[in-house]
Amino acid sequence: MAKTFFWERCTGRKISGNLSTALLITALSLGGVVSAHAEYKNDYYSQAVHGPYQLYKIGDFSVEDGGTIRDLQLAYTTHGKLNKAKDNAILICTWYSGTTKFWEQNYLGKGRALDPDKYFIILINQIGNGLSSSPHNTPGAGGMAKFPHVRISDDVRAQHKMITEKWGIKELALVVGGSMGAEQTWEWAARYPDMVKRAAPIAGTARTTPQCAAFSRTLDEARRSDPSFNEGNYTSNTDVQTGLRREAALWTVFGWSPEWLKQEKWRALGFSSIEDFQTNFMDAYFIPMDPNDLMNNAWKWQRADVGRLAGGDLAAALGRIKAKVFVMPISTDHLFPVADCAAEQKLTPNSELRVINSLAGHLGLFGVDGKAYYDQVDLHLKELLNASV
Amino acid sequence: MAKTFFWERCTGRKISGNLSTALLITALSLGGVVSAHAEYKNDYYSQAVHGPYQLYKIGDFSVEDGGTIRDLQLAYTTHGKLNKAKDNAILICTWYSGTTKFWEQNYLGKGRALDPDKYFIILINQIGNGLSSSPHNTPGAGGMAKFPHVRISDDVRAQHKMITEKWGIKELALVVGGSMGAEQTWEWAARYPDMVKRAAPIAGTARTTPQCAAFSRTLDEARRSDPSFNEGNYTSNTDVQTGLRREAALWTVFGWSPEWLKQEKWRALGFSSIEDFQTNFMDAYFIPMDPNDLMNNAWKWQRADVGRLAGGDLAAALGRIKAKVFVMPISTDHLFPVADCAAEQKLTPNSELRVINSLAGHLGLFGVDGKAYYDQVDLHLKELLNASV
Repeated sequence: MAKTFFWERCTGRKISGNLSTALLITALSLGGVVSAHAEYKNDYYSQAVHGPYQLYKIGDFSVEDGGTIRDLQLAYTTHGKLNKAKDNAILICTWYSGTTKFWEQNYLGKGRALDPDKYFIILINQIGNGLSSSPHNTPGAGGMAKFPHVRISDDVRAQHKMITEKWGIKELALVVGGSMGAEQTWEWAARYPDMVKRAAPIAGTARTTPQCAAFSRTLDEARRSDPSFNEGNYTSNTDVQTGLRREAALWTVFGWSPEWLKQEKWRALGFSSIEDFQTNFMDAYFIPMDPNDLMNNAWKWQRADVGRLAGGDLAAALGRIKAKVFVMPISTDHLFPVADCAAEQKLTPNSELRVINSLAGHLGLFGVDGKAYYDQVDLHLKELLNASV
Repeated sequence: MAKTFFWERCTGRKISGNLSTALLITALSLGGVVSAHAEYKNDYYSQAVHGPYQLYKIGDFSVEDGGTIRDLQLAYTTHGKLNKAKDNAILICTWYSGTTKFWEQNYLGKGRALDPDKYFIILINQIGNGLSSSPHNTPGAGGMAKFPHVRISDDVRAQHKMITEKWGIKELALVVGGSMGAEQTWEWAARYPDMVKRAAPIAGTARTTPQCAAFSRTLDEARRSDPSFNEGNYTSNTDVQTGLRREAALWTVFGWSPEWLKQEKWRALGFSSIEDFQTNFMDAYFIPMDPNDLMNNAWKWQRADVGRLAGGDLAAALGRIKAKVFVMPISTDHLFPVADCAAEQKLTPNSELRVINSLAGHLGLFGVDGKAYYDQVDLHLKELLNASV
């Protein structure tokens, strides 16, 4: 399998840095599968960049806040084999702006916690992330800005339908994900308590906090502030580049910790100045993306609330969880602070708080600490997977 | 003296809340003094709202980054009397978007640390804050967007000129300020080590950190993103209201701590929802302001660096300080984190770290904790003022 640099392919820029960094930005070079839909073409969301992935047809899917996604398709990939007992499946959920590719490349591996030799690992792209049915790839009047608002709970219902129908799986050995992936993980554990045996929400909460939601809304406003966004009626994401760069600037401030920026840790990723890092890393990450897709995911993020399962009572909803849960915040995360994660952990019966130490802040999820980060993740996940339930 | 509600006068909205909150937003009703300049009229920057204040004429003033402010005037006010030895003067410096009014109303008082019965208290508005010479009140070609870039060091040089010329003061018993006022405090202590006997930078650093500067740049981009900003060529701040509201939204996310927002502490200020708080507190605070003035102050903030006094060597510059210094970060401040303040304190010879405990984050400076906050400030400042130097 030929490997090329993911970032380089997106941006035309070569990235230096250590092996773990290279790994972080390495994508397998594969292609040939057609994209889910056809209307507005954005080459970023393609098999060439994020594949290989398959599509599972859910069919028409009504979402909780009104509206129906026509011909909902979930983009997914699997690693390993489902055993006869069908009890070795692990589900991985994706974060805001992300796809399954990053986890495939960086969180999975032989001998690691998420080991395809031992587990049947299912990675499903959340609705609206650009690979599964999303505003930009949905044709007709129900696409782009008019794509229905989706909730975390809609995602989890669709994923549940897929996993139970397609493979007949009745239990998940583990559900895990970071950030919005953690929000899906929480929803899975509380919504399907008998099915989820273990759960590991990393750097994410069951209920989005007011500050976190307010941050997410500033991202929306950044995109909207670009006149070319035009209420979502643009012909190319490139037109909305100014808005996407504004979003990227906000992520720089809030995504990384003050100390990480102060110590200029971006130098280890191969950047020569904060401006260079902003332009060629942060901007480069966001400007290929579709603004309507991001708008859709941000709407979902702002409203994540497992408490809805119990009429708004978060304690009651988390109290229903039967899974063994490791709550894994990142020590310097300002978007999903340890205190918020710890508060939810205390409400969860069979749970432990496992803080991941990192200087990087929320975006430590991108593995910029390399081995030091992944070793902690693996250590906790191995212990969790070995725990009897 | 008739008292009216400052916020109410600005916004037409009555604010409820406890006495300390009322105090926070109370302005003395005075007027009659003309504003510094005349070109673009903004009633917010007036004697009626922020007075009484006087103007000191510095004359033409060349700034470090090039350009000359014509007829620089500093708006100031004093409380108490200068003694014969001229050794009881305290200087208070202002923060971003702020004027001296807030400190006059909330940080000073008989029997408190900053006691006008004991000290001659001088409050000087920083250049570009809307009362002193600023983009919006400077007539002609050198005003508005073309007003010179100003550095913290320019402010401190101008303040020094004023204080030494006008009163013949050769020593300051204390220099104190919050946020950008702290940045001026640091500059004073390092630039004029023989003159400054004590210094108390509250919630601010000697050198703006990369994250803090990046945040400040997102505020610039928020204003610029409004087409009506038009590169600073607007005829009224009201035209740029959308940009100013975007700025206010960013301050909500970064200014308050996640926990303060989660606990809905804004309810105690009389707001019924986060949207109500955003519109009628945060937006109401920023939309009367002048975008070019804010742009000017933000430029200054982004570049604060006492290290420039020693060729970029911060340790060397702070090592020059002779004042007794209490470094006073706010425990939950994410813009000027305790760690950053503590690092500078360690570089300062005769200094101590005095953390102010507050749930509010950086904007705890606005005294939303009431007595619990001001008592801590007073306790530390009294001890500092009583320390022999």
